[in-house]
Amino acid sequence: MDKKLTGSVSITIPFHDVDPMRIVWHGHYVKYFEIARCELLKKIEYDYPQMAESGYLWPVVDLKIKYVKAIEYGDLINVTASLIEYENRIKIQYRISNESGDVITKGQTTQVAVNAKTQELEFCSPQILIDNVKEELKSYD
Amino acid sequence: MDKKLTGSVSITIPFHDVDPMRIVWHGHYVKYFEIARCELLKKIEYDYPQMAESGYLWPVVDLKIKYVKAIEYGDLINVTASLIEYENRIKIQYRISNESGDVITKGQTTQVAVNAKTQELEFCSPQILIDNVKEELKSYD
Amino acid sequence: MDKKLTGSVSITIPFHDVDPMRIVWHGHYVKYFEIARCELLKKIEYDYPQMAESGYLWPVVDLKIKYVKAIEYGDLINVTASLIEYENRIKIQYRISNESGDVITKGQTTQVAVNAKTQELEFCSPQILIDNVKEELKSYD
Amino acid sequence: MDKKLTGSVSITIPFHDVDPMRIVWHGHYVKYFEIARCELLKKIEYDYPQMAESGYLWPVVDLKIKYVKAIEYGDLINVTASLIEYENRIKIQYRISNESGDVITKGQTTQVAVNAKTQELEFCSPQILIDNVKEELKSYD
Repeated sequence: MDKKLTGSVSITIPFHDVDPMRIVWHGHYVKYFEIARCELLKKIEYDYPQMAESGYLWPVVDLKIKYVKAIEYGDLINVTASLIEYENRIKIQYRISNESGDVITKGQTTQVAVNAKTQELEFCSPQILIDNVKEELKSYD
Repeated sequence: MDKKLTGSVSITIPFHDVDPMRIVWHGHYVKYFEIARCELLKKIEYDYPQMAESGYLWPVVDLKIKYVKAIEYGDLINVTASLIEYENRIKIQYRISNESGDVITKGQTTQVAVNAKTQELEFCSPQILIDNVKEELKSYD
Repeated sequence: MDKKLTGSVSITIPFHDVDPMRIVWHGHYVKYFEIARCELLKKIEYDYPQMAESGYLWPVVDLKIKYVKAIEYGDLINVTASLIEYENRIKIQYRISNESGDVITKGQTTQVAVNAKTQELEFCSPQILIDNVKEELKSYD
Repeated sequence: MDKKLTGSVSITIPFHDVDPMRIVWHGHYVKYFEIARCELLKKIEYDYPQMAESGYLWPVVDLKIKYVKAIEYGDLINVTASLIEYENRIKIQYRISNESGDVITKGQTTQVAVNAKTQELEFCSPQILIDNVKEELKSYD
């Protein structure tokens, strides 16, 4: 995967995400990651509605966040999600930066395919995901 | 309805519900109301899982909140939900008080029955709700 | 106030705001209202940071929401906040519509000025708010 | 640290934490961790209010979560936070289990001391934290 699939979104920090220390409460970053992840998944036409239609659930099984700099009410952030693995599971890396380009947060999520009917874990990704990723990457040549 | 069906819950305010003014952000009270409402609905065995099984959705169509006093991190509150109408819709009143018994917040929600299959609004409450409420009230005599 | 001060924002419904009924959980609308309200307050240069600088807190003391239509994951909504009172308190009305222009939700919040030092309620709005509103309205002529 | 400082809390999963897959949305676990962490910090009398009084902020700089089993609306979970490092930073491990004792989630947070005045990072923990931890551990003998 030399060419990376990415999804990006800009978010202005809302008042209700800010804690008594006047910085964004650390748990809210999980939402910012998700918004960028869904942008990425839309590109390969395999966002939540398509996942459900394909007969698979994709629970997050692992989450890591490193907080580098704090952000405050009204700050404008850019969140980028990059697909780094898709053949056996979906692994996505995140990077949040502020308007000056400083790194604010880095993170990673891992999702696995679960058969919606049997509730069993799939050890390879469903063909539809693999096909959609390859199709999208082809357009990058 | 002389005898009122109620559901109550005690909640210690968590850090992540507190805003930069060091008080609970006003939108979080909707969660406190819901926790007490579900306690009430469990009493009549008609909480979310039973609603779904009975073939009805019960969206909230109206919400009103009056904020009387602010609360802070660590405060212990008591939330009481009282059923005040059920024959055509579910109308519930809420009262939040602090440890000294002071009223913190008052509120009200209205929910209507929607047929899950047809997505149509029901103008009378499903029989199961009426029966369950009457059964529960009988036990109060 | 013939000419109304308004603030508007477009929001794409994120996955984490959707409940098991596959519609936006009713409490999340309070966040959508707030994002539009802050756009309105920025126009008169009296958003949260300026409120704090001016020595006043502006807690929400009353909230009303009417839910007309449900919205789902990925829906694009427009939220408009309109200032309808400011001389003694801040009263704002909200209207959420979908891409077809259908009304989704209507609401209203009331905020009162509290002196940050004395914690006492002010029965008239601080002069800075009145001046800023008039200044902004003047530019509409 | 043979004897470990721990804080525990029981939580009944509220409806508003459940996503369209009918399981708890992965970001909400950060809240459950925090509630248990604050129970732990209260034991050593160094919870958020005491942190602020002591002149330090303790931002979370690292968060890791492993999701083992899904949980649903109404499930009763037990969340335990264990202090595993405090001399240079606060490192806490979390374990969530269900009523059958199955592990649901494991996690870890790292917090560092930041001088509230200078906004500079402290490389050793403030003496008050070290003293309070030792005092509490002494009582375990």
